[in-house]
Amino acid sequence: MSSSFGTLFRITTFGESHGPGVGVVVDGCPPRLPISEASIQAELDRRRPGQSRLVSQRKEDDRVEILSGVVDGNSLGTPIAMLIRNQDARGKDYEDIARAYRPSHADYTYDAKYGVRAIAGGGRASARETAGRVAGGAIAQQLLALRGVSIVAWVDEVAGLTAAVDETVVTREQVDTNDLRCPDPDAAAKMIERIEQARKDGDSVGGVIRAIARGVPAGWGEPIFDKLEADLGKAMLSIPAVKGVENGSGFAGTLSTGSAHNDVFYRRDDGSIGTRTNRSGGIQGGISNGEPVTLRIAFKPTATIMREQETVDRDGNPTTLMPRGRHDPCVLPRAVPIVEAMFALVLADHCLRQAARS
Amino acid sequence: MSSSFGTLFRITTFGESHGPGVGVVVDGCPPRLPISEASIQAELDRRRPGQSRLVSQRKEDDRVEILSGVVDGNSLGTPIAMLIRNQDARGKDYEDIARAYRPSHADYTYDAKYGVRAIAGGGRASARETAGRVAGGAIAQQLLALRGVSIVAWVDEVAGLTAAVDETVVTREQVDTNDLRCPDPDAAAKMIERIEQARKDGDSVGGVIRAIARGVPAGWGEPIFDKLEADLGKAMLSIPAVKGVENGSGFAGTLSTGSAHNDVFYRRDDGSIGTRTNRSGGIQGGISNGEPVTLRIAFKPTATIMREQETVDRDGNPTTLMPRGRHDPCVLPRAVPIVEAMFALVLADHCLRQAARS
Amino acid sequence: MSSSFGTLFRITTFGESHGPGVGVVVDGCPPRLPISEASIQAELDRRRPGQSRLVSQRKEDDRVEILSGVVDGNSLGTPIAMLIRNQDARGKDYEDIARAYRPSHADYTYDAKYGVRAIAGGGRASARETAGRVAGGAIAQQLLALRGVSIVAWVDEVAGLTAAVDETVVTREQVDTNDLRCPDPDAAAKMIERIEQARKDGDSVGGVIRAIARGVPAGWGEPIFDKLEADLGKAMLSIPAVKGVENGSGFAGTLSTGSAHNDVFYRRDDGSIGTRTNRSGGIQGGISNGEPVTLRIAFKPTATIMREQETVDRDGNPTTLMPRGRHDPCVLPRAVPIVEAMFALVLADHCLRQAARS
Amino acid sequence: MSSSFGTLFRITTFGESHGPGVGVVVDGCPPRLPISEASIQAELDRRRPGQSRLVSQRKEDDRVEILSGVVDGNSLGTPIAMLIRNQDARGKDYEDIARAYRPSHADYTYDAKYGVRAIAGGGRASARETAGRVAGGAIAQQLLALRGVSIVAWVDEVAGLTAAVDETVVTREQVDTNDLRCPDPDAAAKMIERIEQARKDGDSVGGVIRAIARGVPAGWGEPIFDKLEADLGKAMLSIPAVKGVENGSGFAGTLSTGSAHNDVFYRRDDGSIGTRTNRSGGIQGGISNGEPVTLRIAFKPTATIMREQETVDRDGNPTTLMPRGRHDPCVLPRAVPIVEAMFALVLADHCLRQAARS
Repeated sequence: MSSSFGTLFRITTFGESHGPGVGVVVDGCPPRLPISEASIQAELDRRRPGQSRLVSQRKEDDRVEILSGVVDGNSLGTPIAMLIRNQDARGKDYEDIARAYRPSHADYTYDAKYGVRAIAGGGRASARETAGRVAGGAIAQQLLALRGVSIVAWVDEVAGLTAAVDETVVTREQVDTNDLRCPDPDAAAKMIERIEQARKDGDSVGGVIRAIARGVPAGWGEPIFDKLEADLGKAMLSIPAVKGVENGSGFAGTLSTGSAHNDVFYRRDDGSIGTRTNRSGGIQGGISNGEPVTLRIAFKPTATIMREQETVDRDGNPTTLMPRGRHDPCVLPRAVPIVEAMFALVLADHCLRQAARS
Repeated sequence: MSSSFGTLFRITTFGESHGPGVGVVVDGCPPRLPISEASIQAELDRRRPGQSRLVSQRKEDDRVEILSGVVDGNSLGTPIAMLIRNQDARGKDYEDIARAYRPSHADYTYDAKYGVRAIAGGGRASARETAGRVAGGAIAQQLLALRGVSIVAWVDEVAGLTAAVDETVVTREQVDTNDLRCPDPDAAAKMIERIEQARKDGDSVGGVIRAIARGVPAGWGEPIFDKLEADLGKAMLSIPAVKGVENGSGFAGTLSTGSAHNDVFYRRDDGSIGTRTNRSGGIQGGISNGEPVTLRIAFKPTATIMREQETVDRDGNPTTLMPRGRHDPCVLPRAVPIVEAMFALVLADHCLRQAARS
Repeated sequence: MSSSFGTLFRITTFGESHGPGVGVVVDGCPPRLPISEASIQAELDRRRPGQSRLVSQRKEDDRVEILSGVVDGNSLGTPIAMLIRNQDARGKDYEDIARAYRPSHADYTYDAKYGVRAIAGGGRASARETAGRVAGGAIAQQLLALRGVSIVAWVDEVAGLTAAVDETVVTREQVDTNDLRCPDPDAAAKMIERIEQARKDGDSVGGVIRAIARGVPAGWGEPIFDKLEADLGKAMLSIPAVKGVENGSGFAGTLSTGSAHNDVFYRRDDGSIGTRTNRSGGIQGGISNGEPVTLRIAFKPTATIMREQETVDRDGNPTTLMPRGRHDPCVLPRAVPIVEAMFALVLADHCLRQAARS
Repeated sequence: MSSSFGTLFRITTFGESHGPGVGVVVDGCPPRLPISEASIQAELDRRRPGQSRLVSQRKEDDRVEILSGVVDGNSLGTPIAMLIRNQDARGKDYEDIARAYRPSHADYTYDAKYGVRAIAGGGRASARETAGRVAGGAIAQQLLALRGVSIVAWVDEVAGLTAAVDETVVTREQVDTNDLRCPDPDAAAKMIERIEQARKDGDSVGGVIRAIARGVPAGWGEPIFDKLEADLGKAMLSIPAVKGVENGSGFAGTLSTGSAHNDVFYRRDDGSIGTRTNRSGGIQGGISNGEPVTLRIAFKPTATIMREQETVDRDGNPTTLMPRGRHDPCVLPRAVPIVEAMFALVLADHCLRQAARS
């Protein structure tokens, strides 16, 4: 179990989906930083279930309580602990699960690793754990905002349906205009239709989230192993259901040639150095180059589906599982704030790491 | 600068391309492990330039010297330091580079970060640094071999040309049958032709390396943040020129549905639990499930091309660069052992981390 | 701020003395370990103020709530978060403190470091923070108990008055027979008298705690830098008011000669290898040798005294401080469980680290 | 094995006394720092054997080679690797050692931990390993010097003979005026006589080194667990033969009362805040307060003596050992630069950690 992330700006999350609560300790946040509990709550509200018909209908308020590290709306420089109580435990839905391994969930692997088939422990693999990340990431975003860095993520693809989004100008307000968090309204409508179809079918779909950070100065990222794209990649691949990540041109860039792919340097009007294209995704040699940092993140279709599936029980005997209750036919809308949170946590950490060098 | 990787099985690399040498310290290698210097050298030989007409013709022997931690062919449990002397410094080729920033190289970002335009320092961003990783990874592979784990990587795509490779059976011997390290001979021939064309054009191409680890037992990987795919993703994205990484179905999986994508559990003949398909790429919830662990890694086209390119000098003044000498029109053949090394380093680390739990 | 301790068995504490609460997240605790909440509470009760007339009379129940990581009395292998609500904030006592720096407290240095004079933040320097350590250490002790390792600490000196204690046989029950936690009743009586005198004088006294761990097998400790005595020394010096630490013969050993000081090896009746004396304090070359591990820890006199003291305010202007309310004339009785907790945290961590090697 | 030390300014040492060499990789050194190889060599010369009749007569040049990270006398910001070749292997002296465990050495514990009785591995426990620390510490001292921080350590006690040294003014030049590195010439003469007597007796003596860092600004040190005194304590206790460490008043302070022990604040002439006394040893609440940081470190008598000693062989059979060759009757003169190096490494690390906060 490794529930900590970051070197200098560091979070430690805790909690299962079916215990007293989930939470996070943020250690390394600089002192005298204005901390808005309302902003933290707003990010949690974007992540929580039940916020729209598109996502799981579980009712969870996800009300955050700051336990330490903040006085009169300012950080002390001490650890900021935050607790979100669980409300909707509803263990009965999970009786079947206790009996057999859900396909493509973490039930079997947690059992193989820890030797314990506690559902509450499997609950650690629940997306509910990410509430702590979102709370911690909200603080990271407040630190970054003071340094002129902002992050926007959005749903860019669902089940192969793609949005047309100008990444250079898209805003979080545009993203939040619909429940899907896709800033292309026409594409969003089609995607929502597709998701509704999946729900009716008791099935699920996947997709791609894109994310961009603007205002990142040149110089963040720590070669050789803590390159900015490496830490971002790890951050994204630690999110449940993520199976791939790209920076800049990503896999598409493999089809290009060096002469077509290289980003040419030029002098900006303000005298600083920029690149005319951004196939590098804002990172060269593991270090930010002053251009926007861009990511694409692949989410597999939700493993939970409302259909009978073959599987085995703990002893390996064949059986079937027929889930009951509620499910997320598409996790992407709720994953947008999680992607932003993890993005912010990496950048805040590297911001402090670079400061240590001066 | 963060030149260490791993928690319990941990490497620290050092060295620039134009100094006395490069190397690595492996800390945390268990004692009484047979260490074959010949095997380490063999891996380095697969990575070094000049090994075939496909890659850079720089002459470097890359002769490894073990400085510590091994006596009579066995590890002591103490740090294993290895040194590879530089031989072919040839600083003159780099005079132009000192004058201007090479497009899509790390020249500008290192300067922005460290405020030093030392070519030898830019040399830390050189792929030569990866020699230390390969030496360390060779030891990790020897540790894993004793536990029945083996890794194979191969060139799977070049400039959009794809190989047909059965990942379940491909061997390293098949991979090494041609200079390209692509085990599909027909595809390899076409890819080699494409690379030769790029060389003639003074241009470069990118591609995709696939990699598989067999024999990984269920239970490796440390949720929440050190999930196996997260650490593997970080490892791969820390390799120069990598712009994307996938585990299992990756981006293609986003086009599927849950009912089609889920991997159904079954009992194997030996009584263990397996999955009938492996879209999860051997990892569920961040923990290995006993199936082969699979990766795809995207390499952009080499930034070094033999063509005049626009750029700016250190003061932002427009200028052009015309490289001289030698270049790698495609880094993928030499990247295969680097991918294997990083793969092995992650698995060896998680092997020890899981052992700590027992 | 670095509020985490340990490599594999790792705690992160949070909380100020004057906020919602204090607590700890224990990450890395192996799964399927019986966790007794009653045992955790019992250790907290030994640390809390108000338990006897010898210590501060603040009324704090220090009631622990386990927030995660434990189901049905067993660890899941996931993070164990524990919360202890603050009850007796009483900020008014601290108005004077806000005005001026208390001598030999952390008021000035926290202000110099963090630039914030929040009392609640200074409250992070309060001994109240150690409640989280004690809760985490209680779990470490439960892990160690299963491996046959037990720890006893006791008050061995107060203001130069020394106890006569046979470290080879002393038990925690004997330690807890008096409020002072000194298992030599005659010495304890004199020490208590001395402490009462200090209280009447509005003054305070210091002393020495000794601690021993029995049952530690040979082989724990990680040279070169994470030697067992080094990690133990760090653990003890991180406790408020500690100014010195010794392992084995300590400073007294510097008066000896090699021929008199060396511990001679012999074969025990059970065939294992022991030493006839234990001047090494159970550690040689940073690794446990199977003999009891012994420590002595120096605590300075409590900085809080009920006397007017000269000092300066935040601007450096001379002023005086006259504390009000309650104080601990001697912290040692309450420090005994803290020492045991930190001792256990180091041993549990090294237990897991050595297991990783096998 | 944990051969790395430090969080941001981080060293990794490697090497056994009887292999190709020992060395260090310094990672995290800021760029553009003047690095004097001569200064590094000078520190190594103070540590090496054979420099005076007081210490072991082994002939070792300890010639340092910088392998990376420095160009034209300036750091690049990349890892600085340094190698010191072994010259005087002389394995024959160690044949007896291979047969039996030397009392109070690490022979038995390394065997118990690693299961390997390789002398070269036992050689990792050799003080020769500290050459890497001294080389790394020399760079830390160059970083600190630019920030006005200087460190002096000296031999303060040998076998109970004490020096009279004014810690507020003592200089390294005064320390180095005699082979013992004791700046009190009269006491030094008596101590040298005592050491010579021990050598004639085939015996050894221990003692105390004191150390002071001047110019440390208020604000360094990271509560809760990486308090400055905690990290310094760990650093010192990781040095071979150290059995105790004190900061400020240390164990003697336990005899005092709060009213006598507290350090009163006042305003210095330059307007800054100081304390009239320094019983806190420059640290309060784990953070430097601007006063000199003071340490006392206890070294046990060298375990190697030229006398026949009882012991057991690997199977536990009783036997005797009669060492041959050369020995250090007192390690303290050579330990002075090691103490300074470890002191500097901790301070350089905390200097960067505090910078990260700004």
